[in-house]
Amino acid sequence: MVIAVIGAGECSAKEAEMAEEVGRELARQGAILICGGLGGVMQAACKGASLIGGTTIGILPGDMRQSANPYVQIPIPTGMGYARNIAVAKSARAVIAIGGRYGTLSEIGFALQSGIPVIGLNTWSLSRNGVPDSSIIPALTPAEAVSKALSLMANN
Amino acid sequence: MVIAVIGAGECSAKEAEMAEEVGRELARQGAILICGGLGGVMQAACKGASLIGGTTIGILPGDMRQSANPYVQIPIPTGMGYARNIAVAKSARAVIAIGGRYGTLSEIGFALQSGIPVIGLNTWSLSRNGVPDSSIIPALTPAEAVSKALSLMANN
Amino acid sequence: MVIAVIGAGECSAKEAEMAEEVGRELARQGAILICGGLGGVMQAACKGASLIGGTTIGILPGDMRQSANPYVQIPIPTGMGYARNIAVAKSARAVIAIGGRYGTLSEIGFALQSGIPVIGLNTWSLSRNGVPDSSIIPALTPAEAVSKALSLMANN
Amino acid sequence: MVIAVIGAGECSAKEAEMAEEVGRELARQGAILICGGLGGVMQAACKGASLIGGTTIGILPGDMRQSANPYVQIPIPTGMGYARNIAVAKSARAVIAIGGRYGTLSEIGFALQSGIPVIGLNTWSLSRNGVPDSSIIPALTPAEAVSKALSLMANN
Repeated sequence: MVIAVIGAGECSAKEAEMAEEVGRELARQGAILICGGLGGVMQAACKGASLIGGTTIGILPGDMRQSANPYVQIPIPTGMGYARNIAVAKSARAVIAIGGRYGTLSEIGFALQSGIPVIGLNTWSLSRNGVPDSSIIPALTPAEAVSKALSLMANN
Repeated sequence: MVIAVIGAGECSAKEAEMAEEVGRELARQGAILICGGLGGVMQAACKGASLIGGTTIGILPGDMRQSANPYVQIPIPTGMGYARNIAVAKSARAVIAIGGRYGTLSEIGFALQSGIPVIGLNTWSLSRNGVPDSSIIPALTPAEAVSKALSLMANN
Repeated sequence: MVIAVIGAGECSAKEAEMAEEVGRELARQGAILICGGLGGVMQAACKGASLIGGTTIGILPGDMRQSANPYVQIPIPTGMGYARNIAVAKSARAVIAIGGRYGTLSEIGFALQSGIPVIGLNTWSLSRNGVPDSSIIPALTPAEAVSKALSLMANN
Repeated sequence: MVIAVIGAGECSAKEAEMAEEVGRELARQGAILICGGLGGVMQAACKGASLIGGTTIGILPGDMRQSANPYVQIPIPTGMGYARNIAVAKSARAVIAIGGRYGTLSEIGFALQSGIPVIGLNTWSLSRNGVPDSSIIPALTPAEAVSKALSLMANN
C-alpha cells in the first residue's frame, strides 16, 4: 500500500498540521508514504508518519540525497527536476493532495490521467468548459482523506 | 517564437476546427508550433500551420517518428512517455490549451509553474480552496488566443 | 545505504547466480537494494536480498506495479520508459553492474557522470581514444563487488 | 533527416574543429542537426551547420532558452536535466559521437539500445567481458562520419 502525499514545498501552518496528521494516519494503517521529499507539506507528512514508525520515501528532483527533508527514510534523488513529479504520482495507488500550487496541479493531472484516485484537502478544484469536474474527491479531515485513499486504491 | 498548442489526442469537431485555425494563425505570425505530435488537437493545429508553410515540431512520447501525425515536420521521439509533456510545456514561450483532458491539465501545471503564460480555449478552469484562480487566460476565438499568446510570451 | 544493482532483463545462468549472491550479500550488510525492477539480473538480485529479509526497491519503466518481479518489495512505476534508468543510477550511493547490455551502459554513464562509483562483474569495459578508462572498478566475485561498493560509497 | 551530434560541453580545439566540420557537412547534405544545445562539441557543430544555412535544434537540460549556444536556432528547454540526453539520442536517425565524457556514454547507450547507429570520431570504444563490441562505428574524418551516418540511418 503506497500512498502519495502531494503539496507545496512551502505551506501554511494549517496545511502542515493536516499533512502531519495524514502522515500519522497513513503510518497507523500500515501504508508506505511516498512524496517529493522536500519541505512544506512533504516534510510535515513525512514527520507524522516517521515519528510513529511508518516508512517514508522521497523522490527528489535534484542529485543529492541531502536535499531530502529529515523525515525521509528512503531518499531517491533523480536529477530530472520536475519530471520526478510523474514518478511521485504514478508510483502511488492513491494520492492525497493538500493545498498545493502548480506543481501539485501537474501531479494531480498525471494521477488522474493514470486512473489513480486523488483525494483533496483544501486543494485545487477543476471545471472544464464551465462544467465542474468531480475527479478530485474532497475530504474534510485528514482521517477522512486517508480513509478514502485506502478504500479507493487503484490496482495499478 | 515557439508557441505550444496542447490538447487531447481525441477531440470534438469544434475543437479540431479551433486548433486548425490556431495553427494557421501561428504560422501567419511567423511562430514555430510545438506540440505533443499525436492526433486530435495536436494534428489539427499542425495541419493548420503546415498547410500554409509554418514550422511544426512534435515531441513524441514513444520511440518511433512514425507515430507523429502527418503534419509534424520535425518529429522528436523521446521514449519517455508522458514525461515528454514537461518538455512540450517548458519549450514554449506561451501555451495555448484547447479543450483537453488530464494530460493537458498536467501540461498546464508545468507551464504555470515555470511562469509560462497559458491561454485557454474551451479548456480547464481552476479554483483553489474555493477561490477562482485566474492563471489560465481565457480567449473566445483562435485569433484572440494567438494574439494573447504572442503578446504575453515569457522570456524563458 | 542504498546500492543499485544493474544488468539486463534477460541474463545467463551464471549472471543470475552472481546477481543473487550480490543481493544476499547486500542484505547481510544492511544495504537497501535498488534496481530497475524487472527480470534477469534485477530479479535474481532482488531474490537474493529478499529471501533473507533485505529491502528491495524497483523503479519500473511502465505504469503498472504488476510488472515488477515478485521479489520487489517497493515497486515504483514511473511511466517514463528508459528515463527511469537515470533515477536508478542517481539514487544509489554505489552501483554494481552485472553483465548487461546497452541499457546498462547508459546507467553506467549516468552514474559515472554523477561521481557515483560503479563496480563491475563481467560487464562493460571502456576505452576512449584508444586509452583504457578505469572508471568501472572490476570485481572478481559478488562478495568483492559488494565490499567495494560499500567501501567506496559516494556522498551524493 | 535528423542527425544527432553528441559530445562534451568542454572540448579540445581538435574536437571543436571536427565538430564544426561535421555540422557543415550535415547542413550541406540537407540534414537537420539535433544536439544537447550547450557548448563545446555541441556549439561547434551548431556553428558549422548554422553558418551555411543548416537547421539546428538544441534540447536543453535546463529551463531557459538563453542557456543554448548562439548557433542553436530552435532551443527546446526541458527542465529535466540529464534525462534530456535520452531525447537527444532517440530523436535522431543516426548519432555522431565526437570525443565525449560520461554523459556522451549514456547517450551512446540509449542510441544503441534503440537500434540507432552510432558513428564515432575519437570517442569511446567498448568491450564486454573482454570481448570487443563493435557497435560504435569508427570514422576517421568528419566527412566519413557524416557519410556513414546518412547511409546507415535507422527507420525509427
